[in-house]
Amino acid sequence: MTTPERKTTSFHMSPEEFRRNGHEVVDWIADYYSRIESFPVLSQVKPGDLRASLPASAPGKGEEFTDLLKDLEQLILPGVTHWQSPNFFAYFPSNASGPAILGDLLSSGLGVQGMLWATSPACTELETRVLDWLVPALGLPEKFLSTSTGGGVIQDTASSATLCAMLAARERATNFSSNQEGCRGKLVAYTSAQAHSSVEKAVQIAGIGRENLRLIEVDERFAMNPEALSAAIQKDRQSGLLPFFVCATVGTTSSNAIDPVPQIGKICREHNLWLHVDAAMSGTAALCPEFRYLHDGVEFADSYCFNPHKWMFTNFDCDCFYVADRKALIQTLSVLPEYLRNKATESGAVIDYRDWQIPLGRRFRSLKLWFVLRYYGIDGLQFHIREHVRLAQEFAAWVQSDQRFEMVAPTPLNLVCFRLKSGDEANQQLMDALNHSGDLYLTHTKLNDKLTLRLCVGQTNTTERHVEKAWKRIQEEASRL
Amino acid sequence: MTTPERKTTSFHMSPEEFRRNGHEVVDWIADYYSRIESFPVLSQVKPGDLRASLPASAPGKGEEFTDLLKDLEQLILPGVTHWQSPNFFAYFPSNASGPAILGDLLSSGLGVQGMLWATSPACTELETRVLDWLVPALGLPEKFLSTSTGGGVIQDTASSATLCAMLAARERATNFSSNQEGCRGKLVAYTSAQAHSSVEKAVQIAGIGRENLRLIEVDERFAMNPEALSAAIQKDRQSGLLPFFVCATVGTTSSNAIDPVPQIGKICREHNLWLHVDAAMSGTAALCPEFRYLHDGVEFADSYCFNPHKWMFTNFDCDCFYVADRKALIQTLSVLPEYLRNKATESGAVIDYRDWQIPLGRRFRSLKLWFVLRYYGIDGLQFHIREHVRLAQEFAAWVQSDQRFEMVAPTPLNLVCFRLKSGDEANQQLMDALNHSGDLYLTHTKLNDKLTLRLCVGQTNTTERHVEKAWKRIQEEASRL
Repeated sequence: MTTPERKTTSFHMSPEEFRRNGHEVVDWIADYYSRIESFPVLSQVKPGDLRASLPASAPGKGEEFTDLLKDLEQLILPGVTHWQSPNFFAYFPSNASGPAILGDLLSSGLGVQGMLWATSPACTELETRVLDWLVPALGLPEKFLSTSTGGGVIQDTASSATLCAMLAARERATNFSSNQEGCRGKLVAYTSAQAHSSVEKAVQIAGIGRENLRLIEVDERFAMNPEALSAAIQKDRQSGLLPFFVCATVGTTSSNAIDPVPQIGKICREHNLWLHVDAAMSGTAALCPEFRYLHDGVEFADSYCFNPHKWMFTNFDCDCFYVADRKALIQTLSVLPEYLRNKATESGAVIDYRDWQIPLGRRFRSLKLWFVLRYYGIDGLQFHIREHVRLAQEFAAWVQSDQRFEMVAPTPLNLVCFRLKSGDEANQQLMDALNHSGDLYLTHTKLNDKLTLRLCVGQTNTTERHVEKAWKRIQEEASRL
Repeated sequence: MTTPERKTTSFHMSPEEFRRNGHEVVDWIADYYSRIESFPVLSQVKPGDLRASLPASAPGKGEEFTDLLKDLEQLILPGVTHWQSPNFFAYFPSNASGPAILGDLLSSGLGVQGMLWATSPACTELETRVLDWLVPALGLPEKFLSTSTGGGVIQDTASSATLCAMLAARERATNFSSNQEGCRGKLVAYTSAQAHSSVEKAVQIAGIGRENLRLIEVDERFAMNPEALSAAIQKDRQSGLLPFFVCATVGTTSSNAIDPVPQIGKICREHNLWLHVDAAMSGTAALCPEFRYLHDGVEFADSYCFNPHKWMFTNFDCDCFYVADRKALIQTLSVLPEYLRNKATESGAVIDYRDWQIPLGRRFRSLKLWFVLRYYGIDGLQFHIREHVRLAQEFAAWVQSDQRFEMVAPTPLNLVCFRLKSGDEANQQLMDALNHSGDLYLTHTKLNDKLTLRLCVGQTNTTERHVEKAWKRIQEEASRL
């Protein structure tokens, strides 16, 4: 059924239809947030449920917009795991906020490509400015400023940031010959045994090879042991290999361990290795002066990233990636076909972010980050980070006061790693019961080979009562076991 | 100045505030599309203009949402190049539409992570289903269906798709040892001299090396010469190298040349090379039976991609990437840390798209694609593709009827490559004058070493009158030279 209005615009949604449908979608989202606690946090559907409810082929004729919203509600929503629920404590936060969602909507509406300065100057210049803002705000070294030798860029994820850092390091270590000649099996990279899986993925992608990645042992706090790093580098050098890259982690995904960046940095400097600091999980906390120690040693880093799309109320995707020497990065990733040549690029007066990333195309992601920083202000962001940390610390204290449980790792910030003392099976049962209830969602890791529960406080709307309820439910289910 | 309402929600935007601000943003976008032709298509700002207008540091205190919208209008808009203007004929289309923008808004609002099936089953299953829909709709081989040996996934860009294809090819060619051992300098890749720059970027990233990429000569239509490909492969084999990968292009960015995929496919099969078909620019046209010939030979391909975010009214980012053998791709890109383990993954009954891409995190991009397919229907999409092609052909006829101009390449679809006969400088002047006027925006390439103007018809709202006006302005400026 096609409305008369739609016929006249030849299948397109006219601005007036967009206005009407857009208001309806905005209302749907506002209502979604108002009723989000009524849904089971972890979707309870079975594999294939949604698939079976969808037609086998694309519609030949166009459908009404209201029918799409109906199916969103009836078909899609039951298959959604509610990452934006205040009862979501799993994996890592991936928190969103009103200003971010609306900034992103404007980015979709403007629909510009930011691959070159010339293809939309505002897209590049806003990104540069906002990423510069974050350098002093996070206590990062001045070399990461675009007005210095470095600069920042928005990547989709920390995985991509790590890969870009490794590629620039690979080029630097081979006198900028690896792009031309390929890898030749001599380069060695280092990270801790608790680092993110993206480091392993990056050595595979970059042609370094998994056998040339050393997973350095960790101490009792699950942080990299710098003596072991130093010994591994020396051993590799003696074997005729070429150590070139270290990834240190500020807040591991598994347990929030913080690698000793100052010591690691000195080792990297001594041996001329590229140091990348992956603060995807926890870098945001450095907005608060009392947590700025997290960035101690980053002055030794060649590159750094953190994720506003985790814990800074900016919806995915938005990873902020900084380099100390932008020339090394650009020289590594630049390609310039004729059809992208233009006067602004050739003048050298502008940044072309295409040369700072893997893909060519890029959307106007700085709009949402700008909106978040301005709407909250640094004050507002600090308030919520402090509150999340306070709630996690409070939860940790409750765990410690219950004889049935034990803490498995320190709680420097907003992630609590704990377990029932009664063994892996009991912990698995506890987690399954909680997640199946739909009341909250938490996930696990293994630490010292023991199944460990992880409760991460970081969703935008999580408050005291949600954490209290989580603990109450955990205690209830533990009693039931 | 903080409103009382805002204080009570501790800096957050409440659902009611979101509703009000969201309506305002939707209205802004609707109005933007209504007045878009009043702006110069190419932004007229100078390097540094926007940057200078922004404060040097992030605000300490939060600001009102209306102030953000005010700055969007006054500061950002002049720095925007209007990719969504119907007078945009540059580079390639990156077209958006109402249903896509609103689908994407819902994705931002739901804010789910789709890295695993378990982290939001609907995100995975809708994507699988919608990508399956497109296989018969585009006349692609059945092996690309998820119900067969293959399957589709949404990537951010064709650059990433090409990289993923090359990585899987690298692994297959080395008996799945290159991830483990790294690259060893023997692998050789092939593409045409007119292929996208992302192929060159991919061989660099993947550690293959630019010196192991052969840019195969093209024929008078700028399409790959299959005899030259065959000869290059044989020469490399005789030199003890290992040919492993060919990227064929269906619609080059430069001139819309279509490589002879059937012949290339047979050569790849004969020598057991991975064939990737990059149809980013033109694959959408195959929705129309009369253009389905574009996919002749894709039955030989190991992988294929096309970009709904170019010419299918789906705002960036949305590249559809298909593989014939999903096991090869997954085996190449899979990493499974403990904290991502879950029962659904271990059952083998589900897809975890994390293993089909470079990053770990992923947003719910299939929502916007689903909305576009349902809102337009295949009929509606065909209507607009045919119209864009018709307008480009009409424009080409006008060019041919004007003695001052010449055509430089065939016009199979919606891109016209033409030039003034009077030399490169005249063409540069013509292009600069047109783009500086703000009336339209077109870009250039070099073909047979001659500066060539490119006019690409593909923006959502481009109609006959916009193409007529473009030609009128081109003629006027040509007369003025």
